Amino acid sequence: MVTMLDIIQKKKGNLKHTKSELKFLIDGIVNNSIPDYQLSAWLMSVYFNSMDLEETSYITKLMMNSGDVLDFSDVGDIIGDKHSTGGVGDKTTLVFVPLMAALGLPMAKLSGRGLGFSGGTIDKLEAIPGFNATLTSDQFKQLVKKNKMAVSAQSQSLAPADGKLYALRDVTCTIDSMPLIAASVLSKKFASGTNLIILDVKCGKGAFMEDSKQAINLAKFMVDIGYRLNKHVLTVVTDMNQPLGYAVGNAIEVKEAIDTLAGNGPADLVELTLSLGSVALTKAKLAQNIDDAKLKITQAIQSGLALEYFAKLIQAQGGNSQVIENPKLMPQAKYIKTLTVNNNLGNELWISDVNGKIIAMAAKLLGAGRSFKGEKINLAVGIEVFVKIGQKVFINEPLATVYADTEDSLNIACDYVYKAVKFSLTEVETPPLILGSYE
Amino acid sequence: MVTMLDIIQKKKGNLKHTKSELKFLIDGIVNNSIPDYQLSAWLMSVYFNSMDLEETSYITKLMMNSGDVLDFSDVGDIIGDKHSTGGVGDKTTLVFVPLMAALGLPMAKLSGRGLGFSGGTIDKLEAIPGFNATLTSDQFKQLVKKNKMAVSAQSQSLAPADGKLYALRDVTCTIDSMPLIAASVLSKKFASGTNLIILDVKCGKGAFMEDSKQAINLAKFMVDIGYRLNKHVLTVVTDMNQPLGYAVGNAIEVKEAIDTLAGNGPADLVELTLSLGSVALTKAKLAQNIDDAKLKITQAIQSGLALEYFAKLIQAQGGNSQVIENPKLMPQAKYIKTLTVNNNLGNELWISDVNGKIIAMAAKLLGAGRSFKGEKINLAVGIEVFVKIGQKVFINEPLATVYADTEDSLNIACDYVYKAVKFSLTEVETPPLILGSYE
Repeated sequence: MVTMLDIIQKKKGNLKHTKSELKFLIDGIVNNSIPDYQLSAWLMSVYFNSMDLEETSYITKLMMNSGDVLDFSDVGDIIGDKHSTGGVGDKTTLVFVPLMAALGLPMAKLSGRGLGFSGGTIDKLEAIPGFNATLTSDQFKQLVKKNKMAVSAQSQSLAPADGKLYALRDVTCTIDSMPLIAASVLSKKFASGTNLIILDVKCGKGAFMEDSKQAINLAKFMVDIGYRLNKHVLTVVTDMNQPLGYAVGNAIEVKEAIDTLAGNGPADLVELTLSLGSVALTKAKLAQNIDDAKLKITQAIQSGLALEYFAKLIQAQGGNSQVIENPKLMPQAKYIKTLTVNNNLGNELWISDVNGKIIAMAAKLLGAGRSFKGEKINLAVGIEVFVKIGQKVFINEPLATVYADTEDSLNIACDYVYKAVKFSLTEVETPPLILGSYE
Repeated sequence: MVTMLDIIQKKKGNLKHTKSELKFLIDGIVNNSIPDYQLSAWLMSVYFNSMDLEETSYITKLMMNSGDVLDFSDVGDIIGDKHSTGGVGDKTTLVFVPLMAALGLPMAKLSGRGLGFSGGTIDKLEAIPGFNATLTSDQFKQLVKKNKMAVSAQSQSLAPADGKLYALRDVTCTIDSMPLIAASVLSKKFASGTNLIILDVKCGKGAFMEDSKQAINLAKFMVDIGYRLNKHVLTVVTDMNQPLGYAVGNAIEVKEAIDTLAGNGPADLVELTLSLGSVALTKAKLAQNIDDAKLKITQAIQSGLALEYFAKLIQAQGGNSQVIENPKLMPQAKYIKTLTVNNNLGNELWISDVNGKIIAMAAKLLGAGRSFKGEKINLAVGIEVFVKIGQKVFINEPLATVYADTEDSLNIACDYVYKAVKFSLTEVETPPLILGSYE
């Protein structure tokens, strides 16, 4: 009989777990028979000695099957999902879900609430008056069937082993382990019944992982787990040194998503949407190749179809779709201040840095993010930064707009913005957004 | 304000703890404000990234001061203590305490009960009818003052932070970490008011540490901690591949200790006693040098003074000192069987192995050791192995005597003994007992 002590001892000694050991572990988590102090010792051993592809694939499968597993077989063979490891100003999901649905790829998107500098997808959508992001499994499935899309807060009944492990990792400094990240993300996705998962692995100052090598390893690793569990996992590694798009907040990010679906999005967000969308559509055989897919995406935006689908998504979940024409129906900040390029270096300048971490801290300080689970966040506040690294700017040009609910936070956030943006007198290269794509 | 997450993060990242971090940690253990799952994550990080001399010295001091600290200043400037990291047949303390007291070095020995293949010092002494090894702090101090010696079970009020940490290490596979071992052993010793601590670090098949390099590192490390905390810590690294002396059990080990104090001890136990005793007496300035100390020890044994002190120790703690003349007053086994050298290799043989681990397993199987805290052990049973590696033996010569309380266990233990002892047709070198001595 295997014991938890044997399991800790093995991983501590850098040995590979057997399937029965991993089963003992996940069963023990589900039925609460393994004390937290033993789990956390094991987690820390995994942090140091890792798990290989075979171990991680198997534990992912066990975690996926530790609770309910949604079944969309009556909707179609391929059900899409999109996940980002989290970045500053990342509203891509809001654009991606209606766009893919419009092009025939059903999207069943379960999402978490944000913890950190800004809200998650669910929080952002709740800036839309009336929007209900807490669907039952049945409601969720019905909407995917009917409209080819739904977005809901994650149910506790999916992958409960991950829920418990994640909570423990969060309080024991064992979040940043590649096999634990991969198993956590993928077990939830697979349990939600999706089988074409587009993962955006962010790296840089504004992301969880700063190192691109690490991010690429994680991306490839998750693709490989997909193969072993018979799911399509597509990963794109993207730069997150500077914010994505302009807006960092909640209501202001929804507005930017609407602009993007209407064809007026920031270049980087449009590029990312095209990149993620084209690999997804091609894999789902809804486009012949990447170029064909990009063309279809562009047409869906230009024709207004993508925006129609966003309206449909909002209406189906009880929201007021008039926000599309009138974004001011969403929560509005009391204080709005636009900062300009104000620098005595010279008239002609290049942006050499827009520090995503500092912008994130400013957004958090304004109240756009939460520090602990369940904390209320302010949906109105945030920051729009209009400049990108490598961009040429002129003195007195608009630099950023800060949306605040108090004068104090407005002033501090403005200082942060000036700290985050750096200028150069000589030309600066534009860094690439997409660092790699793996399938 | 430091948090437990910061502390875990730091050690996980192989950074050095500050004094205030370590204070936060030990305070949190004492007042139960740090959850076990965070402590165990930290413990595992320490296993992987270790702690240096400065960190370990400071945490040892904090652990020592986490509860009562005994004060023997009215007894003398130097109070001796002796500790072994644990080995098979290690009854040295029973010999050492009365011997040192007889030569003028006060010995205040607090000891644990054994967990594993045989009893601890306290269990062994309880084989003496009437012996009370559970003294109050006051009784303990009075006896050290009056007789220059006392042996008692460790009080829970000394180094309680170590008690809690040790219990957690035991169930999270984090026992085998050099800084954690050093801090645990030394904090208890220092809290018991002693300042001349002789540590016998065992290594080999029958010990906790198999690798001599590791054992030597631990020995030196503990000496260095002693300097930093202004205590004399003397360490001797000794071989524990084969059992120490002949007897492995409880009553039979007491008998062997009596024999040794009477001048009839096994050569290896005598050698170890001389080695540990001579460094202790020299350091305590009770002998001019090592040779002088060895002479004094030999004289104390030959004159009968050492044995008189053992009688005094027994009487002072309520025991029947007639066991010295009549060891049969101690618990006796029902079945006693002597095995002989029984080998068809040839008439003239050399012993090439006496596997301490296998002998230990046999003693445990007979009932001499315990598997869990509080388990009753059988004080009568055990094994005497009369041969040592490198010894020349002849066919039909006595090899071992097994003391059992059931026929079944007798038979299985005999099989184990035959498995533990290996013979060679060619001469085998006698391995050294003392591998190093550090102060």
